[in-house]
Parts: sequence; structure tokens; C-alpha cells
Amino acid sequence: MNTALIGLDWGTSNCRAFRIARDGAVLETRAGAKGILAVEGGDFTGAFRAMLGDWLAAHDAPVLMSGMIGSRQGWVEAPYVELPAGAAQIAAALAPVPFAGRAVRIVPGLAGDGLAGGRDVMRGEETQIAGALDALRGGSGVLCLPGTHSKWVEVDAGNIVRFATFMTGEVYGVLRQHSILGRLMEGDAQDEGAFAAGLARGRNDGGLLHQLFAVRTEGLFGMTAPAALPSFLSGLLIGHEVRAAREAFRAAQVTLIGAPALTRRYAVALGEARIESTVVAGDDAAAKGLWRFADSAGYFSAMRGGTDLRPQLKPG
Amino acid sequence: MNTALIGLDWGTSNCRAFRIARDGAVLETRAGAKGILAVEGGDFTGAFRAMLGDWLAAHDAPVLMSGMIGSRQGWVEAPYVELPAGAAQIAAALAPVPFAGRAVRIVPGLAGDGLAGGRDVMRGEETQIAGALDALRGGSGVLCLPGTHSKWVEVDAGNIVRFATFMTGEVYGVLRQHSILGRLMEGDAQDEGAFAAGLARGRNDGGLLHQLFAVRTEGLFGMTAPAALPSFLSGLLIGHEVRAAREAFRAAQVTLIGAPALTRRYAVALGEARIESTVVAGDDAAAKGLWRFADSAGYFSAMRGGTDLRPQLKPG
Repeated sequence: MNTALIGLDWGTSNCRAFRIARDGAVLETRAGAKGILAVEGGDFTGAFRAMLGDWLAAHDAPVLMSGMIGSRQGWVEAPYVELPAGAAQIAAALAPVPFAGRAVRIVPGLAGDGLAGGRDVMRGEETQIAGALDALRGGSGVLCLPGTHSKWVEVDAGNIVRFATFMTGEVYGVLRQHSILGRLMEGDAQDEGAFAAGLARGRNDGGLLHQLFAVRTEGLFGMTAPAALPSFLSGLLIGHEVRAAREAFRAAQVTLIGAPALTRRYAVALGEARIESTVVAGDDAAAKGLWRFADSAGYFSAMRGGTDLRPQLKPG
Repeated sequence: MNTALIGLDWGTSNCRAFRIARDGAVLETRAGAKGILAVEGGDFTGAFRAMLGDWLAAHDAPVLMSGMIGSRQGWVEAPYVELPAGAAQIAAALAPVPFAGRAVRIVPGLAGDGLAGGRDVMRGEETQIAGALDALRGGSGVLCLPGTHSKWVEVDAGNIVRFATFMTGEVYGVLRQHSILGRLMEGDAQDEGAFAAGLARGRNDGGLLHQLFAVRTEGLFGMTAPAALPSFLSGLLIGHEVRAAREAFRAAQVTLIGAPALTRRYAVALGEARIESTVVAGDDAAAKGLWRFADSAGYFSAMRGGTDLRPQLKPG
């Protein structure tokens, strides 16, 4: 089948590219080594050509990208679209990237109100959500995208109407690497028992700032082994996220989008909180979401590209 | 007046030494540059002599130390005393330090149950608490010692019966220095308005892991200035600590022990939570607590020391 779209999910520390057919089938996937923070001197044009020059030369298809590539630290800053937002609103706000001989655009982020006031934002997840809509009955439901900045999202008939970010993954990372809690830990292997113990501890009194210190005393008194402490901390934090999100989103069933290592942990935490879950793979969702936005933007009824300039687009 | 006790409050990143008279009066205070983490090669004997050799030569008085100097990373590991504990229990568990020609001992830490289960510990704060007892009616009340690891403590007739640690200060530090939240911040100046806004935000829905992300969007959308964001984060975290501690300790009045910059912030947060507060200076409390434990241990009824060996104790 012909390539109708070149899609990229280009985040802070990872990049994935997809060759996508007109019907949404993913023909080829390529994992790039360079997240946007690893692109030297902000030379995104060079990094893009180095990664996909052969695809650009071989396939006369437009390019659509999502993720932090559209942030202030990315290639071109794409605006935030205000909630509620569905594929139509998002497709209408694609940000053009100056690039010789090819239509290259970036999916905008979304902005909405925070649960506690102030604002909340996402960038990249809107695309995975659009790609997971078929997993929701009637295109409605609550989704959870665990990660550095976990997102909980309410979708109504295909429109994102509300979402909330939880800094769970990043708080885990900085405590693991830079706090006194990390000093007693060894490795990052998953320990199901310690994860469950952390989940259980988090249901008790004292609040998160108190309960975190127990990670130290667990190690100090040898109650939890150094190799199991990271999972205990992870359980404590994910448990707090799930309880706060359950309070805000009140869903009996949640669709998890992400990589297996993380969605497995969240499925356990959701189960403990009496929330059923189904899982959609993150990469598949990103590719499908990019295709959906491209379709909404009319890419497949009026193909774009710059075949005349193709010789400029060779690798290197 | 004669020096009856040389007291040290020797923590992770600071050291303070006090020459103390028999009646508890502080005759001289000296601030040392080296916290225990700055003592090279674990040569605490050398660091101690370099800091206080002249005092040791001039004053034939025993030495009592409190703080992280008694931790596994310190000079000698002093045991934890189990709650409930007053001056008598603590004085009975002073840990001797091998040191030629002088009685040198370290105050033990305390251990108790955490609010959420597991264990909790303190080391150093027990001494400040003992020194602040006169500020409590009948030696009973609730104290708060804000810091890297804030402690909330319930004292009954001079005995510490319950306490809880909150990692507020350390979580602030790692997020300020190592997380995405710090990237939009400038400096560490205090901004009362932003601190109050952080306190207020923390009272709303979503939980701490969600509310933390608002520190980023406040900066991203220019709603809070870069120089004010650290205070917003501080207000958010201290507000969470105070609410969780109020729930656990249910006190209408709290005695704050610490340095003015921090106790001022906590007094504001306590006021917002409708808790009255009085303040005791941390250094004064440490010196008085060391004196109280020395008195309980009988130091002033039977003076100890090693005058014969004094020549060994010269500086350097």
C-alpha cells in the first residue's frame, strides 16, 4: 500500500515515526534515538532529515507530528487549543513548520482548567487519545495515560471535555535520583509485593509528604529490601494519583494508554481502587491519532507534498 | 561563669557549638562550617578538634552532641529510644564516643510509629524539643519543627508521646533544583502574595501530585512571575503539610521551633488553618536541650573530664 502520511510522535526523550496508509494501517515504524532535548543546537531540520530522509525521498506524503516538538523548546511552537476539543478543532489548528518541499505540520496542545484552579495543559496525549477513541463505547469515557506527567481525561462523544495532570512519574524520578529516599535503594526492578505494600500504605493517614518519609524508615530498619524500595515508593505515589483522580473523575471503568510496564502497574492500582481497566498500546494510539487528525484536516482528499523539490530531501 | 558543658548541635549541613554554664546560660556560641557530610574521610575526631580545640584546652567540661552526628553516617551511631520518651529515658541512652581525655557523648534519636503505619524517626529534634518545654503550659502541647524533614510532635508532661515527619523541605528542594518546575523559576526570594496563593491553591481539589503541575502552568502562561514561583511552590507544599498534620494532631495552638525565615512562613500557614502559634528560636532550644539532658544524666553533680590529657587536645 502507498504511504499517505508520515507521522511522528516526537517527545522530550523519545521519537517514533510511522509510515501510514490512507486507511490508517501502519506500514512501518521507526524509533529515533533523539528526543527534542537531545537535538543539538535546536537543529530540528537536520535531525528530521537524518532520521527520515529516505522516507521523504521515497514517499510523497505530508508529515504530521505530535508531542513536545510543538513546545517552546521544540521546532515550532504550536498553540494550545481550548477545551472542549475534538478532532475538528485540533485539525483546524495544525501549526505549519517551514520545510522545503513538503507539508510539515505539528498538532497543537490542549489547555483547560486545573482541578484546583489555574490552568492545565497537555501536548502529545491528545493524539494518543484520538487514536484510542474506538476503544471507548460511543467515543465516551475516562482515560488514563500514565507517565512522567500522567493525564486523566474525560471524553464525551469524541470530544475531550476535561483533563488533569499528575506529576507522579517525575516526582518518582527526582526522589529516586536526588533525595535521601534514593540512597537506600538499589536498582529499579519491579517488586509486586512492595508495590502493593506502597499502595496500601498510601490509603492510610498522614498525607503524601508524611508517607514519603516512611520509604526511608522502611529501608533504615530493614523492613523493605533495598531492591524493593523503588517499587514501594512507586506504589505510594501511583496510589495517591489514582485516589485523587478517582475522586475527580468518578469512573468505574478507565482506558489505560501507554507502555506495558507502566499500564500493568496502573491496572493493579486501579483494581485496588475498584476501577476496571482496559489497555491500549501507546504507540498504536499515537499513529492512529495522527492519522485521524490528518483525515480531519483533509489530507487524504487533497494530497500535498513537493515532489519537485524532492532531491533536496536526501539523507544527511 | 565557668563552662560546665560543651554542647554541639551537629547536623547534616551545619554545626553549632555552645559553651554552657551550670545553670544553663549560654556563654558563647560558635557556628562551624562543616556539617557531617562535609567532614572528609569521616575524620570526625579531626574536625571536632579543629573546631573546638581551644575550648577543650581552656574548659574542663564534658561534651554532649545531638543531631545527625549520631547517625550511621556520623561519628558514632547512637541508638533510637522508643516512645514515649522524656529527658530521663534519653539521658540514660547517651552514646559514648571514643575520644582521648574527655567524656564525649551523643544524644540518641527517637523512634515511634508512623501515622500511616511503619516507623518514624527523629535525630536532633528531640534535643530542641527538650529545650522548648518551658514554652509549653505544664510541659504539654504540640510542636512543629519545620525544615528539610519537618517534625510535628505531641508532648505530654515533658514526655514525647507521638510525632510525625513530613518531607516538605526536601521535596521542595528536589523539585526546585531537579524537576521541570524549577526551569521556569528565578531565585529563591520570598514573595508573600505567591506564598499565600500557593497555600490557597492547596486547599482545593486534585491532590498534591496534580496541584504541583499547576506550578508549571502558572509560569507557562505568565500568571505567576518567575521570581514568585518558588514561593508559590513553597505555599503549596507547606499548606499540604499543615492540613495533614492538623488532621493528625488536632491542636488549636502549636509551638514552632526553628529559624525565623521558616517559622514566619509556617506561622502564616498555621494562621490560615486557624491554628495559633508561638515561636522558639532553634539554636536557643538546642543549647537548652543539651543542658537539660546533661543535667538529667548527672553531669553537673559529678563533673567529668580528663585534665591530665589536656595537652593532647590543642587545636590542629
